[in-house]
Amino acid sequence: MRPSGRQPGDLRPVTIETGIIKHAAGSCMIRCGDTHVLCTASLEPRVPPFLKGSGLGWVTAEYGMLPAATNTRNRREAQAGKQSGRTQEIQRLIGRALRASVDRVALGERQITIDCDVIQADGGTRCASITGGWVALRLAVDALRQAGELKHDPITDHVAAVSCGIWGGVPVLDLDYAEDSEAGTDANFVMTGSGGMVEVQGSAEGAPFSRDELNALLDLADSGIAGLVSAQKAALA
Amino acid sequence: MRPSGRQPGDLRPVTIETGIIKHAAGSCMIRCGDTHVLCTASLEPRVPPFLKGSGLGWVTAEYGMLPAATNTRNRREAQAGKQSGRTQEIQRLIGRALRASVDRVALGERQITIDCDVIQADGGTRCASITGGWVALRLAVDALRQAGELKHDPITDHVAAVSCGIWGGVPVLDLDYAEDSEAGTDANFVMTGSGGMVEVQGSAEGAPFSRDELNALLDLADSGIAGLVSAQKAALA
Amino acid sequence: MRPSGRQPGDLRPVTIETGIIKHAAGSCMIRCGDTHVLCTASLEPRVPPFLKGSGLGWVTAEYGMLPAATNTRNRREAQAGKQSGRTQEIQRLIGRALRASVDRVALGERQITIDCDVIQADGGTRCASITGGWVALRLAVDALRQAGELKHDPITDHVAAVSCGIWGGVPVLDLDYAEDSEAGTDANFVMTGSGGMVEVQGSAEGAPFSRDELNALLDLADSGIAGLVSAQKAALA
Amino acid sequence: MRPSGRQPGDLRPVTIETGIIKHAAGSCMIRCGDTHVLCTASLEPRVPPFLKGSGLGWVTAEYGMLPAATNTRNRREAQAGKQSGRTQEIQRLIGRALRASVDRVALGERQITIDCDVIQADGGTRCASITGGWVALRLAVDALRQAGELKHDPITDHVAAVSCGIWGGVPVLDLDYAEDSEAGTDANFVMTGSGGMVEVQGSAEGAPFSRDELNALLDLADSGIAGLVSAQKAALA
Amino acid sequence: MRPSGRQPGDLRPVTIETGIIKHAAGSCMIRCGDTHVLCTASLEPRVPPFLKGSGLGWVTAEYGMLPAATNTRNRREAQAGKQSGRTQEIQRLIGRALRASVDRVALGERQITIDCDVIQADGGTRCASITGGWVALRLAVDALRQAGELKHDPITDHVAAVSCGIWGGVPVLDLDYAEDSEAGTDANFVMTGSGGMVEVQGSAEGAPFSRDELNALLDLADSGIAGLVSAQKAALA
Amino acid sequence: MRPSGRQPGDLRPVTIETGIIKHAAGSCMIRCGDTHVLCTASLEPRVPPFLKGSGLGWVTAEYGMLPAATNTRNRREAQAGKQSGRTQEIQRLIGRALRASVDRVALGERQITIDCDVIQADGGTRCASITGGWVALRLAVDALRQAGELKHDPITDHVAAVSCGIWGGVPVLDLDYAEDSEAGTDANFVMTGSGGMVEVQGSAEGAPFSRDELNALLDLADSGIAGLVSAQKAALA
Repeated sequence: MRPSGRQPGDLRPVTIETGIIKHAAGSCMIRCGDTHVLCTASLEPRVPPFLKGSGLGWVTAEYGMLPAATNTRNRREAQAGKQSGRTQEIQRLIGRALRASVDRVALGERQITIDCDVIQADGGTRCASITGGWVALRLAVDALRQAGELKHDPITDHVAAVSCGIWGGVPVLDLDYAEDSEAGTDANFVMTGSGGMVEVQGSAEGAPFSRDELNALLDLADSGIAGLVSAQKAALA
Repeated sequence: MRPSGRQPGDLRPVTIETGIIKHAAGSCMIRCGDTHVLCTASLEPRVPPFLKGSGLGWVTAEYGMLPAATNTRNRREAQAGKQSGRTQEIQRLIGRALRASVDRVALGERQITIDCDVIQADGGTRCASITGGWVALRLAVDALRQAGELKHDPITDHVAAVSCGIWGGVPVLDLDYAEDSEAGTDANFVMTGSGGMVEVQGSAEGAPFSRDELNALLDLADSGIAGLVSAQKAALA
Repeated sequence: MRPSGRQPGDLRPVTIETGIIKHAAGSCMIRCGDTHVLCTASLEPRVPPFLKGSGLGWVTAEYGMLPAATNTRNRREAQAGKQSGRTQEIQRLIGRALRASVDRVALGERQITIDCDVIQADGGTRCASITGGWVALRLAVDALRQAGELKHDPITDHVAAVSCGIWGGVPVLDLDYAEDSEAGTDANFVMTGSGGMVEVQGSAEGAPFSRDELNALLDLADSGIAGLVSAQKAALA
Repeated sequence: MRPSGRQPGDLRPVTIETGIIKHAAGSCMIRCGDTHVLCTASLEPRVPPFLKGSGLGWVTAEYGMLPAATNTRNRREAQAGKQSGRTQEIQRLIGRALRASVDRVALGERQITIDCDVIQADGGTRCASITGGWVALRLAVDALRQAGELKHDPITDHVAAVSCGIWGGVPVLDLDYAEDSEAGTDANFVMTGSGGMVEVQGSAEGAPFSRDELNALLDLADSGIAGLVSAQKAALA
Repeated sequence: MRPSGRQPGDLRPVTIETGIIKHAAGSCMIRCGDTHVLCTASLEPRVPPFLKGSGLGWVTAEYGMLPAATNTRNRREAQAGKQSGRTQEIQRLIGRALRASVDRVALGERQITIDCDVIQADGGTRCASITGGWVALRLAVDALRQAGELKHDPITDHVAAVSCGIWGGVPVLDLDYAEDSEAGTDANFVMTGSGGMVEVQGSAEGAPFSRDELNALLDLADSGIAGLVSAQKAALA
Repeated sequence: MRPSGRQPGDLRPVTIETGIIKHAAGSCMIRCGDTHVLCTASLEPRVPPFLKGSGLGWVTAEYGMLPAATNTRNRREAQAGKQSGRTQEIQRLIGRALRASVDRVALGERQITIDCDVIQADGGTRCASITGGWVALRLAVDALRQAGELKHDPITDHVAAVSCGIWGGVPVLDLDYAEDSEAGTDANFVMTGSGGMVEVQGSAEGAPFSRDELNALLDLADSGIAGLVSAQKAALA
C-alpha cells in the first residue's frame, strides 16, 4: 500500500489554475498533490547571440524553489551566490522538453522564458514544472497569435512529464516525496500528447534495473501522461 | 485624481490569507491591491555565531522577487550570482522592523527566518513584506507557544508598514507603481500597533521637502498603519 | 554628560582639507572628530547605458572602508569578493543625496563618480561622506566651469548630512561611535543649504520613538547642518 | 554510411592505458577513437559531512575539459569563475554511475574522488569518463586491498557507459562528434558487467522517438557495453 | 635628463609619517615623491589553520589602491568582486618580503596583517608598500614589546625595496610613472638593512637585458636601499 | 648528494613530444623528470580590446594543474570558483616570457593563447610551461606561415626557463619538488637562445642571499637554458 493510499497506477490529484500573474504573457499554478509550482511565460525581445539573424526563435527555462517550500528551509540560491548543479540540471531539462513542442521557424526570432518557481515541494517538482510550463507557454503563444504576430501556430503538440519508480518492489506512478526518498529506481518521462518520447531518464538508486522493469515504468508513464494532458486541456478550455 | 481613483488617504484593498505553505511554521499571502507577497516564517535550530551562548533569539529576513513579478521580466538573482543592493537594503529593513516587535530574551536562543517573496509587484513591496511578515512571525510564535516551548509571549506589539508620497503636489497614502514612479517625495513608515515609530525613511526624488510636508506624510501614515493593523487582526482572528 | 564632553547640540570639530589627490578633479579629506574620510570626484566620459542620448548627466558614489579604520580590523571587501549590504546601502544613499543638489540637464551627458573612503572611523561615516563628497563634487564642477565646458552651474545648493540620536534618553547631535553603539534611536538627516530635506532616516534601536522625539531630532539636525554648511564654505573660500 | 566508415553496431577502437600518474592511487588514459580522457582516483581521508560517523564510504567525481580539447578553444572554467551547468550535470552523472558498483559499507568511511579530464574531445566524453573512471576506481581499491585496509572487495561489478543515437534514421552505436551534432535522438546508457541498467538517458533532439526506437538503442547498448567491459578487463589483466 | 630632473642614482624625496591611524597597532604614511601609501599593522589573535599549534607566528599583507589614486580612475576591486592578478601578486610579494625580517619563533603564535593602501600612485607602489609596511610592522612589534608580550625582539633587520630600470638606455634608480611606462627593463629589489637580498625581480619590457645591465641595476639598488633604510630610521627615531 | 643523484649542474632528463592534440595549432607534452606539462597553442580571431585597430598581435597564457597532479590532490580551481593568486602569477609570467620572443608587428592583429596544463608535478612547473609553451607557439606560427598568412617570421629567438636554488648550501640547477621544498633560496630564470635575460626572479626562503650567490645561480642558469634550447631544437627537427 502506497503511503498516500493510491494504487500503483494512480496520479496525484492535479489542478492547473491559469492567469495567476497579470504581467506575464502566460501563467499558471500547477498543483500535483502537495507539489505546487508557479509557471510563467515572459516574452523577451532578444534571442541569444548564437541565434541572431537566424530567423529562429528560442524557448528557455529557469527553475527556483522558495526557501520555505521544503520540509526544512532550503538556502536561497540568490544568497548562496549561485545556482546548484541540481537546479541547473533541472532547468536545462525543462528547456529541452518544452522546445520539443515548438516549431522555432514558426515562432520567429523571439524568446520565451519559462520561469518555474516551486512554492511547495512534495516530490516531482521537475515534472510538474514541465507540465505547467507547457500551459504557460501555450497561453503566451495564444496571446501572440491574438495580437496577430504569428502566422502559424508554432506549438506542434502537448508536452507533459511524469515520474515513475520502483517502490517496495512495485512499479508505481507519480512518486511523492515519501516514496521518492525510498524508491529503488527513479525515472522521469517527458512525452508528447501523441505519445512520442522526448526525454527518458532512469536511475538505479540501489540495485540495477532490468529491461522488464524499464518497460513496466514506460507503461505507467504512457497512462500518466495521458492524464496530465487531459488536465492541460481542461485548464485551457 | 489618483490613477486608481482612490482618495489621498485611502489604502489599497488589503487581504491576508494565512496557512499557505504546509512546511512553514507560519505563512501568509498578503495582497495590497496588485502587490502580492508570500511571507513565511521558518524556525531554525541555530542562532548566528555572534549570539551563541547569549540566551538571546534572532529574527532575520530575506526578500526576493519572482522574475515575472514585474512589468518587464526582472533577472533572477540566483542566476546573476548575487543579490542586488536594493534587495539587501530591503531585507535588512524588514529584519530590523520585525525585531522591533520581539523580546529576544523571551524568544530564547532560536532563530526565526522570515522569507518575503514577491509574486506580483505593483509598488510598496517592502511595506507589504513587513506587514505580512509580521503575521507569519506571529503564527510561528503561536505554534511555539502551543508546543509549550515558550513561557512568555516574545511578541510585544503589532508592526506594520506603509508608504506615503507627494504625488502631483498632494500627499497621498499607499502609493502604487504608477504613482511611485512619478512621486516627488517617497517615504516609508514602519510603526507599531500602539503608534510608536520604528523606521522613518523619506527621500526627495526631485525638489527637497519641507517639515510641513513631512508632517502631512506622518499623519497619513498614522491612519494607514491603523488600517493595516486591523487587517492583521482580521487575518489572525 | 556625553562621553566626549560635548553638549547635546554640539557638532564634533569639523575640518575639510581640499586638494588631497593630484589626479582627481576634486578631492578633500573631511575630519569630523576622529572620523576621517577621503572624498574624491572623478570625471568619466561615459554615462550609464540607461542615460545614453538623454542629454542628462549622472552623479554616483562608491564607499569603502580601509581594513584598519575600525577598532578591530574589518575584512577587505575586495578579498571577500563582494561589497556588504551595509556598504551598498551607504553608497546608494550618498549618490541619491548628492544628485539632489545637481541640475542634470545643466551637467550634460557626463558622469561624476564620488569615492568616499573611510581612513579612520568613529561613527557618522556616511554623513561625513555626504558632506565631504559634496565639496569634492563642487570642486570638480568648478574645474569643468573653469575649463569652459559648462554654460550654467549645475549645482543648485549645498548638501550636507548629520546624524542625531537619543542617547541616555536625551536627543543629541552628531553621534560618535561610543554614543552610536548605545543610542536608543538613531537617525540620519540629509539637508540642503537652504534647509530643505533630502533624506530622513530614523531607526528605533530599542523602544519605538514618538513624533515629539522625531521633532527634537529634526531641530538638532537643522542646527547641525548649518554648522556643516559653514565648514563647506570655509573649505572652499 | 557513417562518417567514420563504421557499421551501425561498431564501437570506436578503445584502449585503456593504466598507471599514467604517479601520485594517484589509480589512473588511466582511456582513448575511444579521438576522445581521450585522463581518469584518476584519489583517496581522501574525509567523507562529506552528511556521512560522518555513518560507517559508509563515498565515491564522487569531477569532470573538466582542457581548453584546447575542442575544435575551437573552449573557455577555461577556472577563469570563468564557475563550472557550467553541463559540467556539473556530467560530473553528477559520473558519480552516480560509479557509486552503483560500490558496496559503501565494505568501502568504509573513506572517500575516493574520480577526476575525469578530457584531453581531446570527439564526442562521448561523459561515457568515456565513466568507463575509464571505473578502471581508476578499481585500481585504487586494489591498492587499498593490497595495503590490507579492506576486508572485503567493495566493488560489486563492472560499470561502463556508451552513447547510442539515431543518425540518418538509423540506430547507431558510440557516436563521434560528427554524428552527435546531427543525430535526431541521442542516448547514454550506463550498465553493469552483468547487464543491469544503472542510468538510461535519452533525448529527442528533433522529432520525438518511439518505444521501438528506444528498444533498438537498448539492444545496441547491450552489445557496446560488452565490448567496453572487455576493454576494461584487458587493461587490468 | 630624467623627466623629474633627477640624476640616474637619485631617489625621489621620501618621507615616512608615523601614527596616522589611532586604531592600528602601527601605522605610517610613506611618500616617495607623488606615490603615497598608507601602511598599517593590525594584530590578530588567530594564525592561519596550517600554523595552529606550531608555535610560529605569521605576517601577511594585503594591498589595495583607491579608485582615484591613478591618472584615470581605476575600478574598485570590491565592486568588481575580486582582486586582480596584479593585486594578488603584489600582496604576496609584500608578505614574503616582510616575513624575511621576522623570527617567527620569537613572534609566537600570533598574526600581524600589514595593509598597504595606495592613496596616490606615481610608480613604485609595491616598493613603497614594503618600505612603509616594514615601519608599520616595527611599530606594532614595539607596541607588543612595551606591553611585555614578547621576550625577544622578533625583527632581525630592516627590509626595504626599490625599483630600478633602464630608461633611455641608462640604468636609473626609483622610477616614477613617466619613466616606468617607457622603461626597457624594469626591476624591483627587496633588501635587508645589512645588504642581503630578499627578492630580485627583473623583467625585460622590450629587448632582453644582459648580465652587465643587471649588475648596474644591482649597484643602484644597493645605494637606494641604503637611503630608504635611513628614512625608516629617521621616522622611528 | 642531491636526492635524485644528480650533480649540482645537471638538468633532469627532458623530452618534448609534439603533435599531442589534433585540434590545437601547436601542441607538445614536455617532460622534465617527473614534471609533465601539456602545452597547446590556439589561434583566436580576436585581440583584446586595448589592441583593436593597433595592427599588433597578442600572445597570452593560461596555466592550470590537474587535481591529481600533486602528492595530495589539489582542489580544482573551476570548482573553487577562482584561480588562486599563485596560478595568476604564473600565467602572467608565462605570457610575459613568451611575448619577449615575438615581434608583435610581424604577428599582425591575431591572438595566440598558450595553455599549459600540468598533468604531473614534481617541481619547476612554471619553467617547464615556458619551455614547452614556446615549442607550441613555434609550431602554431609555423602553421600560420605554411598557410601563407605571415610575410615574416614573428618569432625572434628561442625562450626557455629553468629554476635554480641553494640547496644544502650548494647552488644547484633545476630543482625537483624534494629539493624545492627545502631550498634556502629559489630562483627562476627566463632567457633567450642567445643568452639574453627576459625574467629573473629570486627569493630568499630563509636567510637573505648575497651577490655572489646570485652570480652562481646565474651561471647555472646559463648552462641549463642551453640544454633546454637544445631539447627544443631536437623536438622541432
